[in-house]
Amino acid sequence: MSVIRQDPCTKEWVIIATERGRRPHDFRRPDDSPAERPREASCPFCPGNEGQTPPEVFRVRDSQRNGWTIRVTSNKFPALSPKGELRSTKEATLLEEIEGLGYHEVIVETPLHNRGTPLMDGSELERILRVFQTRYRALREKPHIKHILIFKNHGEKAGTSLGHPHSQLVAMPVVPGMVQREYEVAANHYKATGRSLYADLVAAEIRENSRVILKTDGFLAFHPFASRVPFETWIVPRHPQTSFGEVTSAELAELGQVLRQILYGLYTALGNPDFNYMIHSAFTDDASKATYRWRVQILPRSSTIAGFELGTGIFLNTMLPEETALFMKPFVATD
Amino acid sequence: MSVIRQDPCTKEWVIIATERGRRPHDFRRPDDSPAERPREASCPFCPGNEGQTPPEVFRVRDSQRNGWTIRVTSNKFPALSPKGELRSTKEATLLEEIEGLGYHEVIVETPLHNRGTPLMDGSELERILRVFQTRYRALREKPHIKHILIFKNHGEKAGTSLGHPHSQLVAMPVVPGMVQREYEVAANHYKATGRSLYADLVAAEIRENSRVILKTDGFLAFHPFASRVPFETWIVPRHPQTSFGEVTSAELAELGQVLRQILYGLYTALGNPDFNYMIHSAFTDDASKATYRWRVQILPRSSTIAGFELGTGIFLNTMLPEETALFMKPFVATD
Repeated sequence: MSVIRQDPCTKEWVIIATERGRRPHDFRRPDDSPAERPREASCPFCPGNEGQTPPEVFRVRDSQRNGWTIRVTSNKFPALSPKGELRSTKEATLLEEIEGLGYHEVIVETPLHNRGTPLMDGSELERILRVFQTRYRALREKPHIKHILIFKNHGEKAGTSLGHPHSQLVAMPVVPGMVQREYEVAANHYKATGRSLYADLVAAEIRENSRVILKTDGFLAFHPFASRVPFETWIVPRHPQTSFGEVTSAELAELGQVLRQILYGLYTALGNPDFNYMIHSAFTDDASKATYRWRVQILPRSSTIAGFELGTGIFLNTMLPEETALFMKPFVATD
Repeated sequence: MSVIRQDPCTKEWVIIATERGRRPHDFRRPDDSPAERPREASCPFCPGNEGQTPPEVFRVRDSQRNGWTIRVTSNKFPALSPKGELRSTKEATLLEEIEGLGYHEVIVETPLHNRGTPLMDGSELERILRVFQTRYRALREKPHIKHILIFKNHGEKAGTSLGHPHSQLVAMPVVPGMVQREYEVAANHYKATGRSLYADLVAAEIRENSRVILKTDGFLAFHPFASRVPFETWIVPRHPQTSFGEVTSAELAELGQVLRQILYGLYTALGNPDFNYMIHSAFTDDASKATYRWRVQILPRSSTIAGFELGTGIFLNTMLPEETALFMKPFVATD
């Protein structure tokens, strides 16, 4: 018998039908990606090829080698770009169109072509998170920007064709409907109970414990109750904080370690799975203060989003998070 | 410069960034699928292998050959199943879970393994649509059922592994959030204007004409203003009708012809693309009477749903629908 569960943050349903599915270890795949070298001559993200990318907007210098350890550039094929004005270009209110004003940046995470993100240590990930935050804070100040998403596509099934480790940031002039609904759900919970939805959620997950895979002073990592895909993982701050822009320096160091344990754990447990991760965040810490909370969502991509998901918005998952969490725990021991 | 457009039915945004993209004919791919035979010994949907599927719930008999032309069975790995009771199995209101009560059926569209859906003629598609409606009407009467989605996954990128032409129906005890929002958007439009959103949309598309690819007495087929993927196509009834259950017999015949022209058009224009189609519908014709309208959505799948889409719900499209519609029109001439 399958179950239908509701995501407490979006109020959307998921169906978890384990009869369809496999055991957790069946998701393990042979890591048959071809061996790559530290530098690939044709890769636009490799050192020496800096001229192949759009202009650099930020870099972390490597003082020892007179180069860089992280570079941020505009995306070569930007979804949004800063030129132009924000104006409606259609008259009709039924079909609304605005100009694609915004920022779309690529964060090249390392000069080493073959230094896969899941194999980075905590301090390397921390350094990347600091760059995310620097860019987040800079772009938050730009006119017309209303929401910023930071995300990573790792592997072909997750939507990337470039092997060199990189992530992306999109700063946009609209608030996505999904995010707007999350604000509303959190505000409604606060109105009804006087408490923060995310505080209640973190407390409930710690109390039940069956989905928790890592708990530090600052963060709780767990496989959410209404997981959309097998091994979906959330990292939620344990203390109120609505925006990724407000994370403290000490917390970024801690988050680097947590992310390391999760990503390396998935790498070893599942054999370098394709995955997306997204940093969901309120725009500023003022917005939805005391109700919303920023967080990291990691979605391994073992199945295809098909007609059922596209037609309903309901994901069809094949593994219970209690089962995947149990399987993952040994792989997330502190290193 | 890209544009940001709002879907008038869901109010969700899409970004159309043509700089990223290609020309319409670049989406054409060589149809390199291996030739298959009319009957594959190992295929559970081929005649003679009926025992390999769960029990049949419906069939269209083939009087000439003493066999069947369409079979409906339960899904072997059902997302939902009719046994059990509809009750909440969790105490906490924060983490709501209900039993996976419902129906998940497979419609085997033809006995011929290699009779691909896009190559079927209008009368074959009409026959399939009639079976959809028969099952739709039967399952609508079952206790606890609140929404029914009919959908098809064609090709690997669209989420199917079985080559034998088939589609699926899921009857569920919850209303998807996406559908609930569509009802609300349509109701708000009616409240604000006194008119049906879908009547206004059909009128606007006919007036602009640049996205229309086919217009019959009963239906309008067009590439929607806020297309999520290149060559997304909607077929909308031109006259008020909220539920697929209420479509008349004459309209089903007409829809079979329209669907034939669209699917065969995509097949010839793009080289047998992978696609999903979904029949979106209000549950009954009473629900949202005069505001909502059922429709068919066809989404060719040339790109991967990645971190940006998962993190925002906003699709990143690379082609303007005006451009894809212009390209498609010659392929959708009446046959």
